[in-house]
Amino acid sequence: MAQKPGLPKGTRDFSPEEVAKRNYIIQQISHHFSNFGFQPIETPSFENNSTLLGKYGEEGDRLIFKILNSGDFLSKVKDETYQSKNSNTIAHKITEKSLRYDLTVPFARYVVQHQNEIDFPFKRYQIQNVYRADRPQKGRFREFTQCDADVIGSKSLWQEVEFIQLYDAVFSSLNLKGVEININNRKVLSGLAEVIGETDKLIDFTVALDKLDKIGRAGVEKEMLEKGISQEAIVKLAPVFQFSGDFEHQLQELSQLLSDSAIGLQGIEELQFISKCIQKMPLATAKLKLNITLARGLNYYTGCIFEVSAPSEVKMGSIGGGGRYDDLTGIFGLKDMSGVGVSFGLDRIYLVLEELDLFPKTITEGTQILFINFGEKEALYALKAVSQLRKKGFSVDLYPDAAKMKKQMNFANKRNIPYVILAGEAEIQKEVFTLKNMKSREQFELNLAQISQRLQDKFA
Amino acid sequence: MAQKPGLPKGTRDFSPEEVAKRNYIIQQISHHFSNFGFQPIETPSFENNSTLLGKYGEEGDRLIFKILNSGDFLSKVKDETYQSKNSNTIAHKITEKSLRYDLTVPFARYVVQHQNEIDFPFKRYQIQNVYRADRPQKGRFREFTQCDADVIGSKSLWQEVEFIQLYDAVFSSLNLKGVEININNRKVLSGLAEVIGETDKLIDFTVALDKLDKIGRAGVEKEMLEKGISQEAIVKLAPVFQFSGDFEHQLQELSQLLSDSAIGLQGIEELQFISKCIQKMPLATAKLKLNITLARGLNYYTGCIFEVSAPSEVKMGSIGGGGRYDDLTGIFGLKDMSGVGVSFGLDRIYLVLEELDLFPKTITEGTQILFINFGEKEALYALKAVSQLRKKGFSVDLYPDAAKMKKQMNFANKRNIPYVILAGEAEIQKEVFTLKNMKSREQFELNLAQISQRLQDKFA
Repeated sequence: MAQKPGLPKGTRDFSPEEVAKRNYIIQQISHHFSNFGFQPIETPSFENNSTLLGKYGEEGDRLIFKILNSGDFLSKVKDETYQSKNSNTIAHKITEKSLRYDLTVPFARYVVQHQNEIDFPFKRYQIQNVYRADRPQKGRFREFTQCDADVIGSKSLWQEVEFIQLYDAVFSSLNLKGVEININNRKVLSGLAEVIGETDKLIDFTVALDKLDKIGRAGVEKEMLEKGISQEAIVKLAPVFQFSGDFEHQLQELSQLLSDSAIGLQGIEELQFISKCIQKMPLATAKLKLNITLARGLNYYTGCIFEVSAPSEVKMGSIGGGGRYDDLTGIFGLKDMSGVGVSFGLDRIYLVLEELDLFPKTITEGTQILFINFGEKEALYALKAVSQLRKKGFSVDLYPDAAKMKKQMNFANKRNIPYVILAGEAEIQKEVFTLKNMKSREQFELNLAQISQRLQDKFA
Repeated sequence: MAQKPGLPKGTRDFSPEEVAKRNYIIQQISHHFSNFGFQPIETPSFENNSTLLGKYGEEGDRLIFKILNSGDFLSKVKDETYQSKNSNTIAHKITEKSLRYDLTVPFARYVVQHQNEIDFPFKRYQIQNVYRADRPQKGRFREFTQCDADVIGSKSLWQEVEFIQLYDAVFSSLNLKGVEININNRKVLSGLAEVIGETDKLIDFTVALDKLDKIGRAGVEKEMLEKGISQEAIVKLAPVFQFSGDFEHQLQELSQLLSDSAIGLQGIEELQFISKCIQKMPLATAKLKLNITLARGLNYYTGCIFEVSAPSEVKMGSIGGGGRYDDLTGIFGLKDMSGVGVSFGLDRIYLVLEELDLFPKTITEGTQILFINFGEKEALYALKAVSQLRKKGFSVDLYPDAAKMKKQMNFANKRNIPYVILAGEAEIQKEVFTLKNMKSREQFELNLAQISQRLQDKFA
């Protein structure tokens, strides 16, 4: 009996319409990446375990898809080890490589491996799929596309300014207005931990704060208490939840609170520089917003951090994020390489554009003209014209079989093909074609040059 | 100590230049796919084992990369089974999904799974990576890109004619002249087996014949003998190795040889139809060549088969291939769906274009203009101009740090950036910029509108 086909959990097929829409977003993003001076690289879908494991924390390691060694993979497992029947131990003996979990660690590996060929500062972009053995849910998949741009080898804050402009340029070109670019600085968070006397608990402090959106202020305070942050410290933190006013005003309030923290003040200075630049070069459609409680989960960030949220009428969390890291390549032996990067969340941007009906109608138009097939002689006459029109750049097709007229016309309708061309015995004799507009139902007897002109006017 | 980073065997990083060259080929191919009425689909990188295993023969199954189940994967293996320590048996218990081996089986799965949404005949294309645990060697990788186009749901020979035109269109647009499209028909091979009295041994016969290029006529005859094909049969086959002359002349000789085989004559008739059509619509740069000994390894072909070879001055085997199959979706329960498809070998086409120096020089041009960074005030002045020029579509960059002039100029030279713009105190006062042509070393003081005009003339 034939198998009933299906897909692995958390994976997807993309139909022609979906591919067209995804490619539209990818083209906009990659156009602007390149326009901003980033160069594309690609890395393999899988990396050595030694490259990936231990880079994403314990949770991350569990979510990495490991690839079974080929051949008699068990022959290399010692009997004692085998007898333990311990999945964790044995996994390390029977796999050597894994599917990539993100594009950042492979990028760090790339930079270190190719450091002698690269002219720093290196601005690279990378649009590839990543894989996570996560529990699938709405908007979360086991294979999905990341779109990353990073600059490595420069400490300059102009990069942060440019990334904000890049976000604005991409979302403006996607016609997605009202996007909010939230910004904060890890140094501000360090400063806060310092002034409340909890420098030792910086990570717990950051992790708790990061959940503000989900669990609210009371929830954050409760988690901080549980992690051993003192009641007194939490009281000192209160103003942070009450900051209001514009970017500049909040920075002023913050600098009073952080007046005793050198690192905190440095973070404020960085934010001030960025804010000043953006004021002088206003964004087209996005808004830059200071968000002191923005923390971001990843531990490698050390400077500015970003998170982009969709326009408020769409409920969709973050559609992009990023930040500065001072030592990403250190794990692979290349020290003192400061970098900063951002990521665009393709799947979520797709859902937002879909919800707001922002995909241009033309991108899903496929074949423009279908020639009806009346039989061998007619098909040959048609196919010569098909070739000519294709060479002029039109997307043209000949119905493959001399099927019933109605079937062929139905096909054109279902596939949304705007023009049909009919050429039977009568047309062949006169060396013409009957061009039919499927929408208006009008039809015209024209020669090939006339048809070409008419289509040019329509599609150019 | 830091790890020394490396790549898994048989995989590759692609540098910005390599990505640009690969994308150039992919864009030409996908442009023509779409121009010929094919629609893009995408399927996941991994599929259920039940979808993939058993579809490529024993050899193929061994070359499939299996993905280890997550979590405590050994807990589901029964102790008796576990004690066997048999890699083969246990692999099936601890993996459920595998990386795709080609795009054809996932396509068949897609068609069956989505049959109710598809309007047949369905012309799809798919450009994605595939994975094989093969021994890596020159031009053979463990991850590589396939570019496939197929029509499913039509028995019409016009499809074969169109695929020949498609090959011609793609290779002509890549400026790769002298490509040979070899064609044969599985029905002719069946006919040959029939007339030499070895119908039972059709597969052994085909497999041996397929090796003609590699092992020569003597080798083929030796292998046939070993497989139990009689000496008498091999003698009858002799004319096949001696056919000469043009397409039509060879077909005539062949039809004498196959005059007693109905299926053989049907194969000849199909080839004749195709040859006649191509004569009436001549190819631009490719040559269509009848090759009676062309067999192709895959068992699912049932009609015409194609194999494209690079121009003879390049030693590079096949750069594309394909054929008709009558029952690809049958394995997933959808019967009577005839299909025909072709594939382009991206990696080999890349090597051929590289060897013949056929990549256009412009495709590896990245950043067009670099602004020199003289410090905070100057950088802000520059960045405003950068934004303006980017909006006009130029690829523009500001050097991130106010580094020494020489370092910044060296960076522009190494990155092959044709124009540099300098704007210091003097320029800011006059609201101008100094534009320097890095090749001619000329420089001009211009305002932004003038710069934009000059660049437009140069890059448009």
